[in-house]
Amino acid sequence: MSAFNNVREQIGRAMLDRALSSNRHEFGSFFLSRFFGFEITYDVDRCTVSFEATEPMFNPQGSLHGGILATAMDIAMGHLLQHVSGAGTTLEMKIQYIGSVRGGVVRCEASFLRVGRSISFLQCIARSHDEVVVAHATSTWKRLRR
Amino acid sequence: MSAFNNVREQIGRAMLDRALSSNRHEFGSFFLSRFFGFEITYDVDRCTVSFEATEPMFNPQGSLHGGILATAMDIAMGHLLQHVSGAGTTLEMKIQYIGSVRGGVVRCEASFLRVGRSISFLQCIARSHDEVVVAHATSTWKRLRR
Amino acid sequence: MSAFNNVREQIGRAMLDRALSSNRHEFGSFFLSRFFGFEITYDVDRCTVSFEATEPMFNPQGSLHGGILATAMDIAMGHLLQHVSGAGTTLEMKIQYIGSVRGGVVRCEASFLRVGRSISFLQCIARSHDEVVVAHATSTWKRLRR
Amino acid sequence: MSAFNNVREQIGRAMLDRALSSNRHEFGSFFLSRFFGFEITYDVDRCTVSFEATEPMFNPQGSLHGGILATAMDIAMGHLLQHVSGAGTTLEMKIQYIGSVRGGVVRCEASFLRVGRSISFLQCIARSHDEVVVAHATSTWKRLRR
Repeated sequence: MSAFNNVREQIGRAMLDRALSSNRHEFGSFFLSRFFGFEITYDVDRCTVSFEATEPMFNPQGSLHGGILATAMDIAMGHLLQHVSGAGTTLEMKIQYIGSVRGGVVRCEASFLRVGRSISFLQCIARSHDEVVVAHATSTWKRLRR
Repeated sequence: MSAFNNVREQIGRAMLDRALSSNRHEFGSFFLSRFFGFEITYDVDRCTVSFEATEPMFNPQGSLHGGILATAMDIAMGHLLQHVSGAGTTLEMKIQYIGSVRGGVVRCEASFLRVGRSISFLQCIARSHDEVVVAHATSTWKRLRR
Repeated sequence: MSAFNNVREQIGRAMLDRALSSNRHEFGSFFLSRFFGFEITYDVDRCTVSFEATEPMFNPQGSLHGGILATAMDIAMGHLLQHVSGAGTTLEMKIQYIGSVRGGVVRCEASFLRVGRSISFLQCIARSHDEVVVAHATSTWKRLRR
Repeated sequence: MSAFNNVREQIGRAMLDRALSSNRHEFGSFFLSRFFGFEITYDVDRCTVSFEATEPMFNPQGSLHGGILATAMDIAMGHLLQHVSGAGTTLEMKIQYIGSVRGGVVRCEASFLRVGRSISFLQCIARSHDEVVVAHATSTWKRLRR
């Protein structure tokens, strides 16, 4: 096995250990969020998901897979909604893939376009470690009834 | 540790073993596609990504995470484009989340709205094991130059 | 005034006459639908908006303005929803502009991705007179309460 | 004819007169932009389309038709692109309809998410006369070759 694959294996094993390091499965910490190392933080009316883009998250072309960005941005918007007005479900999400990421910390910052009683509109901006905007998302959410 | 968490740990370890079972990192098989168990098949002008929705892929509310669906649909569309006209990059993708998935095999079938020399438009329909449409995606791609 | 502008003026006056030919302002016939000559028809679980693409509807580059296509597709989807399950409001709409239109009859056919009690998902395909797909739209709707 | 319809007729005739007041059919002023009274202005890296929402632009439910907003936002983004880096064509546009408009001046302000040599990403925010955000759009453009 090449050194390259050894690194992928090492990182993969560390990702799984992190995923299994807790039994929590709730907003803030669940299997997928721990596996990808998503740090979820809040700041007034924003929620940020930060993570390090590592090689197991890459597409066949060697950059961060768009699906991982979609997952991180979905989590940032869903957690913001849950934090501010209660859990909701994504009706739709659109993502613009503006630039590629080949490593470093990615920060996905979610904010509201509008908070509604039933329907809310959110957006999210993803930036690479050098503050370049790499993706932009908008989404529509429906609040879940208790 | 509860039996429940034991199952999540067992499945998680099996996912990592599958991801590490090969050194390939290319169209058709790469770390993420193996980790999630994505089977990629082609049929004339379609590409299908099939996988079993298991508990480690769930959101805090207990259903398949939208980001995993986004990842599977992105892969189905990207592989179809690569298969038919060469590798491309996603400019944008929009996903409608039509129904929730709580288990079973999910099939994401990608097809073209239009193949272009530079820009192509694709769509993808995700169905649950009982043939219910659970998500619909459209996306815009730009071919990469050799 | 050139013959060209004369034609635009003639068509423009005919459009206004058509818009003012009725006082109706309701589903099926309202000022904008008459001005653009939108014919709205239903067929089981579909609604089609057909119209002739004429020069006053063109963008500065000489093809049918994307906003007119957006208007026609929005009307096709909104009328289908109203016809099947009652009037609703568009939460969002995404349109792929697949080909350009330089004249002839355009047909925008709307269908459901899913009818829901509160939230419905629709799509619409626009075809030019020669049956080429020129645009594709998806949208999310919320039913209005009586 | 009711006073109400008289007003609609008066406004409709004024819209047509405005559309026919010039022979221009180019960026900045063309039939549709004059018909709807779209004022197009630039400010460094922004383009704004302003117009008064009048009754002929309304949907059957009595508020500004989403298609007119789509048209205005498309024009704001397309004119900004043309102004900054040359004319382009819309590959796709997504609009969130956040609030309804029942009159007054609407301002649609376009800005770049990223200017590219071939592909550019833009967004547009529409505000009602009282500064409430009523719609948000994102779009992808491809530059036209000379």
